[in-house]
Amino acid sequence: MTWSNEAIKAKKATQFEAIPSEWRIPADKLPPESVTNVISFYKTCGILTQPEIDIVDLEPGVLLSRLANGSLTALETTIAFCKAAAIAHQLTNCLTEIFFDRAIERAKELDDLFTKNDNKPVGPLHGCPISLKDQFQIKGTECNMGIASWLGEISERDSVLVTILKDAGAVQVLLDLAEFPTLTFIVQFGESDNYVYGRTSNPYNRTLTCGGSSGGEGALVALHGSVLGVGTDLGGSVRIPACYQGLFGLRPSLHRLPYAGARNTLLGLEGIASALGPICRSLDGVAAFTKSVIDGEPWLLDPKSPEIPWREEMTLKKPVFGVMYWDEVVMPHPPVRRALSMTINALKDAGYEVVEFTPFNVAEAESIAKELYASDGGEDLSRTFSKSGEPWYPLIVTGGMDKKISVWESWQLNVKKDNFREAYLNHWNNTKSSTGKAIDGLLLPPSPSTAHVINQWHRYLTYTAFFNLVDLPAMVIPVGASVDPVLDPVDVGYKPVSELDAAIQNSYSPELFENAPLSVQLVGRRLREEEVISMAWHVVGALKASSA
Amino acid sequence: MTWSNEAIKAKKATQFEAIPSEWRIPADKLPPESVTNVISFYKTCGILTQPEIDIVDLEPGVLLSRLANGSLTALETTIAFCKAAAIAHQLTNCLTEIFFDRAIERAKELDDLFTKNDNKPVGPLHGCPISLKDQFQIKGTECNMGIASWLGEISERDSVLVTILKDAGAVQVLLDLAEFPTLTFIVQFGESDNYVYGRTSNPYNRTLTCGGSSGGEGALVALHGSVLGVGTDLGGSVRIPACYQGLFGLRPSLHRLPYAGARNTLLGLEGIASALGPICRSLDGVAAFTKSVIDGEPWLLDPKSPEIPWREEMTLKKPVFGVMYWDEVVMPHPPVRRALSMTINALKDAGYEVVEFTPFNVAEAESIAKELYASDGGEDLSRTFSKSGEPWYPLIVTGGMDKKISVWESWQLNVKKDNFREAYLNHWNNTKSSTGKAIDGLLLPPSPSTAHVINQWHRYLTYTAFFNLVDLPAMVIPVGASVDPVLDPVDVGYKPVSELDAAIQNSYSPELFENAPLSVQLVGRRLREEEVISMAWHVVGALKASSA
Repeated sequence: MTWSNEAIKAKKATQFEAIPSEWRIPADKLPPESVTNVISFYKTCGILTQPEIDIVDLEPGVLLSRLANGSLTALETTIAFCKAAAIAHQLTNCLTEIFFDRAIERAKELDDLFTKNDNKPVGPLHGCPISLKDQFQIKGTECNMGIASWLGEISERDSVLVTILKDAGAVQVLLDLAEFPTLTFIVQFGESDNYVYGRTSNPYNRTLTCGGSSGGEGALVALHGSVLGVGTDLGGSVRIPACYQGLFGLRPSLHRLPYAGARNTLLGLEGIASALGPICRSLDGVAAFTKSVIDGEPWLLDPKSPEIPWREEMTLKKPVFGVMYWDEVVMPHPPVRRALSMTINALKDAGYEVVEFTPFNVAEAESIAKELYASDGGEDLSRTFSKSGEPWYPLIVTGGMDKKISVWESWQLNVKKDNFREAYLNHWNNTKSSTGKAIDGLLLPPSPSTAHVINQWHRYLTYTAFFNLVDLPAMVIPVGASVDPVLDPVDVGYKPVSELDAAIQNSYSPELFENAPLSVQLVGRRLREEEVISMAWHVVGALKASSA
Repeated sequence: MTWSNEAIKAKKATQFEAIPSEWRIPADKLPPESVTNVISFYKTCGILTQPEIDIVDLEPGVLLSRLANGSLTALETTIAFCKAAAIAHQLTNCLTEIFFDRAIERAKELDDLFTKNDNKPVGPLHGCPISLKDQFQIKGTECNMGIASWLGEISERDSVLVTILKDAGAVQVLLDLAEFPTLTFIVQFGESDNYVYGRTSNPYNRTLTCGGSSGGEGALVALHGSVLGVGTDLGGSVRIPACYQGLFGLRPSLHRLPYAGARNTLLGLEGIASALGPICRSLDGVAAFTKSVIDGEPWLLDPKSPEIPWREEMTLKKPVFGVMYWDEVVMPHPPVRRALSMTINALKDAGYEVVEFTPFNVAEAESIAKELYASDGGEDLSRTFSKSGEPWYPLIVTGGMDKKISVWESWQLNVKKDNFREAYLNHWNNTKSSTGKAIDGLLLPPSPSTAHVINQWHRYLTYTAFFNLVDLPAMVIPVGASVDPVLDPVDVGYKPVSELDAAIQNSYSPELFENAPLSVQLVGRRLREEEVISMAWHVVGALKASSA
């Protein structure tokens, strides 16, 4: 990552200035490189007061209710989170555009409105500090996605999401972060690094990556620098950072949450597209965000958003789960397998029925998804980078990127994808419980690895990208455990099914992945985000009961 | 239309055999060519008995309730409609595949089930004869869309729509008709003609076309040969035949009704796509069909169908209408203008508020839509026709069809389209009533002409195609009048705004368009089909009141 130009140098010089000097940590007080786990540093570095630490440690649902009833002000909350965000950035390099001053101003406004309106909150997210991946435009600010060619371009509009969040009373602490690779959106890529802002590391173990592409959000939220981060997911870019940082992360069905006005590369690719979703420490944070945005009636502003209101009643009393332990292409690492087994055992112990789900043509799905991502032969990225002369990031998978297909051939890809989706829906419908009812949800690994070693990415995204292809809502759920040398030894007896499978399995050792959190992935029926959240509560409850 | 091959000759030889000899009309009993209006011929030709005439004349809603309560059997109903369909075909050449025997067999089955189930109907469409455009597959039958290359290809599956209609108890009299141009789906084309089955004419005036592409449905339903016809609409192909035959025709929002498993050309084009919708003599027929299909939970079978149940409560007490008298590109013919004025006057007289709606960049919309349709440079059709050597239909608009663009350029088209849709949504939101509320619906002409003279198509589809581009539900509503030499003289003083505008205006004379029925188009918000139907009831009511 040595390429640079004048615009990048200028940007780097000014970025740090947005952090007030009293929130900067002197070099000798920063944890040395040898300290890889920095997850609790915000509690001891002396920048946050104890009451501020208490605020950023509040469970997001509790925080929201205290903001709503006035027992916390927006201002004190915002300052606490800004401080934690400043620390997070200094530890992991997770921020891009930093707007602490705007956030504090907005918090004061919200407190004033609260008083003026007889102690009524402005909206369901009143005073809640939220961070946005560097794709969501705020009029008058820069949004460059870490692409050198876009440096200095000022947004002329708010993204629809920003409009709705403002109406809901949220404080955008930072149109920030994400720190995400410019390239994510066409190649298979699971880190957060780019020429403009550099690399973000994982706060649980800084030799590991935070994942990508919404990796800055993952690191920031894990470090309590934001109540909730909004990422985007075209192949796993919400779920992988959630998984790598042990957070909840929801990739909703396409267009359920409004994407209009977000910047991106690969815009106009419709066969497979990016969806926005929340990353949060708690499930009720995810639920509150999703509900609030939908209650904002996005279909009145985003023409692609379907008019499906939040269905509070869409809950399941005793869901039936399918389980897919592996996808028959790549076997997950031992701790990832353990996370899923733990979850299934907990569910069974709590009386849930769990049905084996047969992997469905995963290799075909992978091939269709890859062809769709690269169907312009890389023209979009080439054009984007050529403006600044920015080189292609070294981790780019160039396979297929140089192959130009015709528009008609891209239509045939869409037909293949549609047929695949229909066949998969039938497969789901035919995976039935003992009473003959189709499964409600599917549990599977979110990734073959926990957070991987920086620059040693395995390039296998299909555990997440599969659900972008078939457009189903999918959530990452942390299981409350992390890699354990005793419980997660290398699987020496494993017989790999392919070279890729062998390489990925061999990349594991408990030492390399020290402290990496574990999680599972839960998938539901299309456009039933409420049901996925309801099922996630069952999973969380069963895990809690089993660890009690 | 002289091209032919062996497969076509064989097809033509067998098609007529599906009509029982006792339903065939001897040449000397058929109306001579000079009799252009054949709309009531079924009543006098002696093939239907008086009770059968009474059945096919029943208002579709009444028919459904009589079938449901057993006062009509499925068999007698089906036979009556099969007879009328056979007559319709002999008058206008509106059928393709003819399945009278299957329909009668199915009707008997339904009657048996009705008795077995203690006089309970099988579903909401129990015993109702429905006809399907020759795109919907029925396992084991042929579905060639009038494309010579596809002759003899037997479907290996049911379309999802067919599955749902079967479960709803419908009788598919004929996977039939449509008689539609193979080419509709890429070029601007408003007739129904092809090399396999030939041309369909308009039963109100056989020198006029029935419209396209679902034109066979239009002619058949107008001639009481089917209670309801299912067409598809990519640029107006449900609405134009409805308009040309004075019927109700609904183009729902994309995917609200399940398209999975329908054959088509241009499959895989997602930037603008074809939606299926009903054509019917009555509004409650349209409502019953739409509700029944949605009640069949298409989202459990078609992965693109959004889970939005039928919302019976989505009705408007006093909708506010916008009106757009013309689109500032092409001025409609005098009778088309009169139909809209009649409607607006009736609404105002009944106390509705009607707000002027400013045309929104119609020329830009037309250009985006045309570029989208032709974005493969005609490759799909070339490949399809090359198998049989079928020539391109003479009316094909070749402009743009020979221009190949890259996949990346097709993405930019999608971006342009998305931006246009968002801007149009804002324009709609900003068109407000006197109380500051945005309009609920928009009234405008469905087409610049009523049914046009065969082979003299004006090639201007934007009155309908605009709403395919922005994906809004749109319904054609007949106003209960037809072209009148006294009320609809040529507009000699009209100052055209372009050559196209002049040519279209000059193509009108009351004599040429004798007996052509008049209608208006009503548009609603996306995915609010229930609201469009509710508003249509208000329009129908106001028109009825004004003519009383």
